[in-house]
Amino acid sequence: MKGKTPSASKTITTKIVLPNDTNPHGNLFGGALLGWMDVTAAICAQRHSRRVVVTASVNNVSFGSAIKESDVVTVEASISRAFTSSMEIFIDVFVENQVSGERIKHSEAIYTFVAVDQNGGAISVPPLIPETDEEKERFEGALRRKQLSLILAGKMNPQDATELKKLFLP
Amino acid sequence: MKGKTPSASKTITTKIVLPNDTNPHGNLFGGALLGWMDVTAAICAQRHSRRVVVTASVNNVSFGSAIKESDVVTVEASISRAFTSSMEIFIDVFVENQVSGERIKHSEAIYTFVAVDQNGGAISVPPLIPETDEEKERFEGALRRKQLSLILAGKMNPQDATELKKLFLP
Amino acid sequence: MKGKTPSASKTITTKIVLPNDTNPHGNLFGGALLGWMDVTAAICAQRHSRRVVVTASVNNVSFGSAIKESDVVTVEASISRAFTSSMEIFIDVFVENQVSGERIKHSEAIYTFVAVDQNGGAISVPPLIPETDEEKERFEGALRRKQLSLILAGKMNPQDATELKKLFLP
Amino acid sequence: MKGKTPSASKTITTKIVLPNDTNPHGNLFGGALLGWMDVTAAICAQRHSRRVVVTASVNNVSFGSAIKESDVVTVEASISRAFTSSMEIFIDVFVENQVSGERIKHSEAIYTFVAVDQNGGAISVPPLIPETDEEKERFEGALRRKQLSLILAGKMNPQDATELKKLFLP
Amino acid sequence: MKGKTPSASKTITTKIVLPNDTNPHGNLFGGALLGWMDVTAAICAQRHSRRVVVTASVNNVSFGSAIKESDVVTVEASISRAFTSSMEIFIDVFVENQVSGERIKHSEAIYTFVAVDQNGGAISVPPLIPETDEEKERFEGALRRKQLSLILAGKMNPQDATELKKLFLP
Amino acid sequence: MKGKTPSASKTITTKIVLPNDTNPHGNLFGGALLGWMDVTAAICAQRHSRRVVVTASVNNVSFGSAIKESDVVTVEASISRAFTSSMEIFIDVFVENQVSGERIKHSEAIYTFVAVDQNGGAISVPPLIPETDEEKERFEGALRRKQLSLILAGKMNPQDATELKKLFLP
Repeated sequence: MKGKTPSASKTITTKIVLPNDTNPHGNLFGGALLGWMDVTAAICAQRHSRRVVVTASVNNVSFGSAIKESDVVTVEASISRAFTSSMEIFIDVFVENQVSGERIKHSEAIYTFVAVDQNGGAISVPPLIPETDEEKERFEGALRRKQLSLILAGKMNPQDATELKKLFLP
Repeated sequence: MKGKTPSASKTITTKIVLPNDTNPHGNLFGGALLGWMDVTAAICAQRHSRRVVVTASVNNVSFGSAIKESDVVTVEASISRAFTSSMEIFIDVFVENQVSGERIKHSEAIYTFVAVDQNGGAISVPPLIPETDEEKERFEGALRRKQLSLILAGKMNPQDATELKKLFLP
Repeated sequence: MKGKTPSASKTITTKIVLPNDTNPHGNLFGGALLGWMDVTAAICAQRHSRRVVVTASVNNVSFGSAIKESDVVTVEASISRAFTSSMEIFIDVFVENQVSGERIKHSEAIYTFVAVDQNGGAISVPPLIPETDEEKERFEGALRRKQLSLILAGKMNPQDATELKKLFLP
Repeated sequence: MKGKTPSASKTITTKIVLPNDTNPHGNLFGGALLGWMDVTAAICAQRHSRRVVVTASVNNVSFGSAIKESDVVTVEASISRAFTSSMEIFIDVFVENQVSGERIKHSEAIYTFVAVDQNGGAISVPPLIPETDEEKERFEGALRRKQLSLILAGKMNPQDATELKKLFLP
Repeated sequence: MKGKTPSASKTITTKIVLPNDTNPHGNLFGGALLGWMDVTAAICAQRHSRRVVVTASVNNVSFGSAIKESDVVTVEASISRAFTSSMEIFIDVFVENQVSGERIKHSEAIYTFVAVDQNGGAISVPPLIPETDEEKERFEGALRRKQLSLILAGKMNPQDATELKKLFLP
Repeated sequence: MKGKTPSASKTITTKIVLPNDTNPHGNLFGGALLGWMDVTAAICAQRHSRRVVVTASVNNVSFGSAIKESDVVTVEASISRAFTSSMEIFIDVFVENQVSGERIKHSEAIYTFVAVDQNGGAISVPPLIPETDEEKERFEGALRRKQLSLILAGKMNPQDATELKKLFLP
């Protein structure tokens, strides 16, 4: 299968925070943002693979400052690495100040998707060809994150995670 | 502040998977499930703290087998540990087979919430008093997960995560 | 068909009242609550029968005090009696005070569901085996309520409703 | 307060049944219809009273044949009687056959609304002046239905429901 | 095919403006109103043709004064002319003042729909028989509007729009 | 007020067509697309003006081929001209073929927005500085379209629309 670049599948969604998306203090529900991230990242994974995709896992997501009602939120999804049938997608979230127009990076998340056929079985996806420095850095880190995911899911012995172990060794 | 048990704030939500929650193969969108988890866990954190809460982070979530349209999904949220103003919430998801009635554990997630006052500032929450063995085990693991979260967010040096390091050392 | 107990199909849903669920005074729309009751009760009837179910009728529902935006509402549905193919479901609604945590019974409703096959035809459901005193009392009253329903729908002559007549006779 | 006729507040809503409104057999959820009835009837009560209104009770509702996805549903609400601060609203539901255009009466429901002020207290509404024969008949029956509601809610002794008792006496 | 009158397919929808339908100043989003117009007009076109219909075009729509949260909005759709397989639908929007009950015409729009068969191909619809003066006037203007649509879509040379040209000539 | 370029406010939204967005033949409702266009264009106008904006008018919109369930739809909005307080926004809609990845231009629409202050009064917006050839061409045409809008709304005499008249004269 022919490789593709991250820019070929980059996906952008822009949302206004509506009343129903917020808690009694007028802050965006984390769950609403998690849902927007999932849809945007799924379109990105689908564009890379040209297949139906399913969410396989969500890595650590941290939410910073509160997002308020009426704020404009931009969700940008880019594929960082393709394995046999799974794809790691980086999601960057930006919030715009309505008056100054200042655009602040709010949070970052990593979702993994698997391409599936009609019976729900995993199916191969094209390899990824990173181009920019940031794309290459995210590509390199993907293996380490995959090992961490497997350990946390109890599917890998921490002792076998050679790449990850380095982090904790003196 | 007087401590509370996990059972005092346990929260259950039951949902039917509707057409709009599914992809072209009829499988539940991961983002929909992430949203249901967030609302259920937020009610649980709110019941424990009697405060407005905001989602602070989402730990590793793995989705197993596909959930289909019309399936009945039960989301159960229980607090596993309370820190000064943050609460770790475990979410267990079950799926029921419509014909046999068999109930299968589908996935497990951990969300962290922070209790906030009117200005969005963090505010103290009651300590947690675990009772059952499972509650005690989840309580113990919470510190390790907190360190992992801080490392992944770049807020802690892996070398300082004494509890976590043990996992990777021979 | 083997009988089942009410506890085997009890269904709980927990909701936060969102802005779109409320009128200009910030009170929950009755229609939103009627819808939540219907979904929760339908899942309960489906769990008892392991069949697709359709709402057949809604008995008298009274709404007490207003439920406000951001309140936590718990909807609990339990089957009270199974007839040949229909099931009577009791729905209890509770509202929680966010600050004190006090939980107040808000309202009670009775819905009837019919189990149907692929062609929409009625199909038999398992009998109900009530266990607690409250379950037995609700089971006994079901026949009286069924007669009332038939009279109100013009399908039974009030003179033939032997059980119901007793209420009005000296 | 000056009386008003039913035609001055009659309210009509027309809906198409969408996929999310239906169960796995493609039939409209009862709860969706109950919600449409509530909104339409609330607008009708609001038009009569020119006040914010809250749903007080729902009388016996029976659902006949199934309504299918893509069917056109018309909900018509007319006030049948005004008491001091409450209003009884009749709701007639019609379903149209897409091919023949035949319009069938599907169901009928009666909701009661109360007009409220800013503090949620009940407030007077204009009396109703029925004009047609059907309007007069529904007006007459309203008192009987009110007594039944009070009995079912445990707020009236059946022996005191003089009007209702006649139904059950030889 | 036998002709039909406009009154045979007239369609009315009544809506309350909810929080999620409004911008930060509490005014109804134009897009929400455009959607309500489309659904109401589509039902009207479907009632005239007894076919599935698709929106083909939207003519110039102007929005006047702002519609506020909690306002009652009535959308009325009437067919103004039927061509071979397309139908022009007029949509009149009214807003009611909650206190005085005053009903103000807010805006007017014209949508065109095409009747389609299972393969999405255009299919004939019954001719329209206008009855009232307003119906006749709208019927007459339809051809002029069709020419304008074709010019704006680049499908007709302005010089060939004989009817429309008259407007701009001395 | 300092001028801004179109690229400074360009807004992109990406959507998947869900079951509830489609008619019985599985085609996207025109009204859903009109709503997506409005939100995307409103964010664009808001980014240019840094003000709350309201939809003032929608110009002729033509819908081409049907958009199907599960298609990926990209809505791109760019400002074409700013008048004193109003902004004309061009909206380009693209549809992607899920298998081939081919991206087709589906439709084009023009919406006009007005910037408003807290009282709903019109307020000045920055002038637009078009840069590319397409931006300049759309900028030039805006005056002609404004005249057409005024004529259709009955606010201008066709004889006074000097720019527009040229189109129809030999």
